[in-house]
Amino acid sequence: MFATRRIRFCPACGAPAEYRVPADDNRERAVCTGCGLIHYENPLNVVGTVPVWGDQVLLCLRNIEPRRGLWTLPAGFLELGESTTAGALRETEEEAGAHVELQELFTVLNVVRVGQVHLFYRARMLDTHLDPGPETIEARLFREHEVPWDQIAFRTVRQTLEHFFADRRGGRFGVHVGDIG
Amino acid sequence: MFATRRIRFCPACGAPAEYRVPADDNRERAVCTGCGLIHYENPLNVVGTVPVWGDQVLLCLRNIEPRRGLWTLPAGFLELGESTTAGALRETEEEAGAHVELQELFTVLNVVRVGQVHLFYRARMLDTHLDPGPETIEARLFREHEVPWDQIAFRTVRQTLEHFFADRRGGRFGVHVGDIG
Repeated sequence: MFATRRIRFCPACGAPAEYRVPADDNRERAVCTGCGLIHYENPLNVVGTVPVWGDQVLLCLRNIEPRRGLWTLPAGFLELGESTTAGALRETEEEAGAHVELQELFTVLNVVRVGQVHLFYRARMLDTHLDPGPETIEARLFREHEVPWDQIAFRTVRQTLEHFFADRRGGRFGVHVGDIG
Repeated sequence: MFATRRIRFCPACGAPAEYRVPADDNRERAVCTGCGLIHYENPLNVVGTVPVWGDQVLLCLRNIEPRRGLWTLPAGFLELGESTTAGALRETEEEAGAHVELQELFTVLNVVRVGQVHLFYRARMLDTHLDPGPETIEARLFREHEVPWDQIAFRTVRQTLEHFFADRRGGRFGVHVGDIG
């Protein structure tokens, strides 16, 4: 169900783990049958940007699975040691080689089914130089009517783009929080 | 440095793991010396609320470590299978036994040093009935001048409270994104 693998052995001591509800808890956890340590599993954050140049937004054609050959906003897993803003900037650099100035937080979208929270920031492109990394086949700017809506890789990306164009028409950008069913 | 423990054994097969930079990566990861699986470690989300009743906010006196005996907003780790809003509501119920209606996302605070992202929502209390769980010594409503500022458990809680009272004075609640140094 979730992206995380089941824990079969204790990462601390290597003894077999078993799933049971620990004392003072109400959920099944992986508990080590050797050293007794409890290993928690929690949702992951995906961070990215909506890079904007004039009336165009930047999309990346994915060169990796899942969803190779479909278009995405630059985004990826938040790493230890970085903030959500630093992670969003890093992914924009890695996947598109774009130079951007980060703006406001724009969407916070729960993807409960896979245990993820996606956070997208708006970003102002500083120039149109692009230098996509190995995860990207091609990075390209799209006007709203040019967006390949039937070839978008993820529902969080689609929803973020829909909010972006709607807010831009409305003349005001909000922060959109929602769930992907 | 981070809250997560180092991975010494492969959670999938139990063989020893070693930290090295895998091919096509640029960071050290725990890689299994047996089955070769890569085990990623990522920041965790803490979700909570600012429960409001009239001109008062609800704080909980912690009955657990860390920071036992200090005051906090109801908050805790986001679990697999729930959205950030569902998690914030659950923690409010578990730690304070308060009945609230969730309002807007209010703060998104990176605590990079410990690998956490804290998300707080404003919440309207539906009544003043409180029934704190075992993690809480006491739950109590505070007016701004009554808040025990020198006994607040976490800097994200302090900063969220400061933003709350400032925004309330200003007559408009925003979404505040920031880093805890």
